[in-house]
Amino acid sequence: MAVHLLTAPRLHSSSSSPAPLPRRRATASAPLAHPLLLLHSRLRLATTAAVSRPVPRARRAMSAIRSSLIDPDGGALVDLVAPADRRASLRAEAEALPRVGLAPIDVEWAHVLAEGWASPLRGFMREHEYLQCIHFNSLRLPAGGVVNMSLPIVLAIGDREKDNIGDTPDVALAGPDGQLLAILRRVEIYPHNKEERIARTWGTTAPGLPYVDEAITPAGNWLIGGDLEVLEPIKYNDGLDHYRLSPQQLRDEFDKRGADAVFAFQLRNPVHNGHALLMNDTRRRLLEMGFKNPILLLHPLGGFTKADDVPLPVRMEQHSKVLEDGVLDPETTIVSIFPSPMHYAGPTEVQWHAKARINAGANFYIVGRDPAGMGHPTEKRDLYNPDHGKKVLSMAPGLEKLNILPFKVAAYDTVAKKMAFFEPSRSQDFLFISGTKMRTFAKTGENPPDGFMCPGGWKVLVDYYNSLQTEEAAIAAAIV
Amino acid sequence: MAVHLLTAPRLHSSSSSPAPLPRRRATASAPLAHPLLLLHSRLRLATTAAVSRPVPRARRAMSAIRSSLIDPDGGALVDLVAPADRRASLRAEAEALPRVGLAPIDVEWAHVLAEGWASPLRGFMREHEYLQCIHFNSLRLPAGGVVNMSLPIVLAIGDREKDNIGDTPDVALAGPDGQLLAILRRVEIYPHNKEERIARTWGTTAPGLPYVDEAITPAGNWLIGGDLEVLEPIKYNDGLDHYRLSPQQLRDEFDKRGADAVFAFQLRNPVHNGHALLMNDTRRRLLEMGFKNPILLLHPLGGFTKADDVPLPVRMEQHSKVLEDGVLDPETTIVSIFPSPMHYAGPTEVQWHAKARINAGANFYIVGRDPAGMGHPTEKRDLYNPDHGKKVLSMAPGLEKLNILPFKVAAYDTVAKKMAFFEPSRSQDFLFISGTKMRTFAKTGENPPDGFMCPGGWKVLVDYYNSLQTEEAAIAAAIV
Repeated sequence: MAVHLLTAPRLHSSSSSPAPLPRRRATASAPLAHPLLLLHSRLRLATTAAVSRPVPRARRAMSAIRSSLIDPDGGALVDLVAPADRRASLRAEAEALPRVGLAPIDVEWAHVLAEGWASPLRGFMREHEYLQCIHFNSLRLPAGGVVNMSLPIVLAIGDREKDNIGDTPDVALAGPDGQLLAILRRVEIYPHNKEERIARTWGTTAPGLPYVDEAITPAGNWLIGGDLEVLEPIKYNDGLDHYRLSPQQLRDEFDKRGADAVFAFQLRNPVHNGHALLMNDTRRRLLEMGFKNPILLLHPLGGFTKADDVPLPVRMEQHSKVLEDGVLDPETTIVSIFPSPMHYAGPTEVQWHAKARINAGANFYIVGRDPAGMGHPTEKRDLYNPDHGKKVLSMAPGLEKLNILPFKVAAYDTVAKKMAFFEPSRSQDFLFISGTKMRTFAKTGENPPDGFMCPGGWKVLVDYYNSLQTEEAAIAAAIV
Repeated sequence: MAVHLLTAPRLHSSSSSPAPLPRRRATASAPLAHPLLLLHSRLRLATTAAVSRPVPRARRAMSAIRSSLIDPDGGALVDLVAPADRRASLRAEAEALPRVGLAPIDVEWAHVLAEGWASPLRGFMREHEYLQCIHFNSLRLPAGGVVNMSLPIVLAIGDREKDNIGDTPDVALAGPDGQLLAILRRVEIYPHNKEERIARTWGTTAPGLPYVDEAITPAGNWLIGGDLEVLEPIKYNDGLDHYRLSPQQLRDEFDKRGADAVFAFQLRNPVHNGHALLMNDTRRRLLEMGFKNPILLLHPLGGFTKADDVPLPVRMEQHSKVLEDGVLDPETTIVSIFPSPMHYAGPTEVQWHAKARINAGANFYIVGRDPAGMGHPTEKRDLYNPDHGKKVLSMAPGLEKLNILPFKVAAYDTVAKKMAFFEPSRSQDFLFISGTKMRTFAKTGENPPDGFMCPGGWKVLVDYYNSLQTEEAAIAAAIV
């Protein structure tokens, strides 16, 4: 497969001079009851505190800049990467411990945990965390209150590994190629009831769920939880590591740019002009609410995706073109990779997507139609009711402090010849172009209507599908 | 089938003179930090407030007696039965409305809702309640805070009924024999995704779940939610209605007896001496904690159960004998029927069992091994990890104010020749008699070990299984 490696600058405006907008003290920010809020009845602005909360004393002491960013879940961002001066001794310790081998998806989860995307989780879930997750989609904090946690972040092992561990409290975790990655401490081993996990996470046990096929069915019958200590930052060496900003790095960047609002857009697809319209419109709305410098976190999912999704390197190149072509403003946009694997678990997963962005500092979250949904694997219908994602998100425990911005449906306006917000009163003028249809266009070389996607971005997709066909033809020729 | 109708007195001590213990003002009740609490680390005593909360002014105005009972969920007990003077006009109104037919289990749920067991629910769930239930096992209150709600209390209708209702806001509900029972107001109709409902409620979609087979598979593809107004109290005319005390009637009875603690025991099986030991021991522990008059709510489930469970009338007769034989003290025990149907949904359902008892005034809840569990319908194992019920209960949102009392395992002590708490140090002396084994004993006429169950109670079971066999023989003879 042809992989288009990016050589784009680290952040999409790092080549520009310091942010032209003056840095602001966030506590001077937006009025709450702007009339626009009344127009967006589903927009949940918890309190101004969520937006302009004063920084706790401890954090203020560490930094001269006052941050307006939302507090991470549990109050402090978890960082499980060992400090440099401990790494040698940790590695020596790990060498002597019983060893558990990680599959590639397990490594992605170790990465997610290490950087605090799942704060306040400090490692793979122990049983009490797992049970709260699958039954309540949330975790109680020892000090009271709850945080959202909808997806089980668990590590499966087999009988042989369990026997090998015995009563040892700490185990070493090794990557797929055998290199030591981490130590898991004070481990707890408990049964991996795959059927129950699948049913409660996906609301179905139908065969053919991509994550299940990839990561659960072949996994062991035990789960091992514990506190994670990662030997050094996890890298993929795929030419995209510079895009993988940790929640702390993102927070630093938002602070550096003087963001007084951060709105996150989760995606695992190329960006078409409908998406762009939505993101630009969101920025406009935030400015109208009184924010002075809303920053967009364009945050493509970087972990496991299903086989027919567009691969990450291609998507990253496509996103670069969208910014190069000026469809999104590089000054007010940060493109970064969200390292999580994809469950395709609809209303359950969208909570995870939102929760993780709280930890990265986003206080506004854009939610689309049927987020994290897909077709039912065995029936001719959507796996989830397309409206349930945003409904569940608006009600989810632990997400009250996040402002949920429901997606307005954009479609191709055949009169205006551009992507526009759908107007039911002249529905006949609009053309809906699904992801499947878009891929079909790109595969067959047919051009989508003018104004569907910027030309640079579209070319990336056409080139990708061409390369796939060339590759397929080469394989077919070799077989013949 | 021979049905043993009870002619027992309405409450198991109503024949006795007024409660011998003086009525107490609850605010003078138990000290919190009794050392025994340290011995029972899993016992969750939220605050003294949960036990001795002062009665809100409005309620105090209505009653001269100060109650020590736990507040119902949402603050006030829901009562959806129309006052007597409104019934005629409601009935006339209902006659003219589109009609939805209820299956027997739907009637049981209407009963549950009408009496406020599911407070603050005011009717069959609308979609926002249903979604919170299946995803979070809890409902947000408009005023903030959450209450537990783990089982969907929903009403299914078919396409024809949906078409018939059209845009009408209110519908009439009719029982299985056609009689009008209630009006459902401001209805909302939404899709009934049976697969998702089953998967998220049971953690499996394996065929053969009793409630699914009985109440979901044959039901319609739409759910209809709304506010319920019941025309008059729902009765079953099975000779057991006098046992069906509403939460308000139970609260009144606890008040009348001057209870300063109420501990509830959910069951759907005959009471053996191990259960009795447990209940008596709980009372002893509560007395040691400083409570002066703990009252046991022996609260058999009265709605739908699976075919091989002992039928309700037989169980009620058995429970009567247990009290007659003095195994439980009638002075400090109230036997009443909990009208809910049974889901056999383990950790999900046990929350419902506990939550409903909060509404009836219980502040202590005894939880057994594998509560609401059963065998997996298609695999040779328990459907749920037997420990998950009590773990989930101890973590469930909205149940914080309820004191969870985990079951100590009782078994037959072959040395002491009685049911006793299991002692792992001399495990060889103990005999575990499962429900299945107990039924086998009763069916085959074999006596269980002396001291397993009081003779009067045992005779009820033997008679029941004899009657079944006689009936089966008669049917077989008739077929031949």
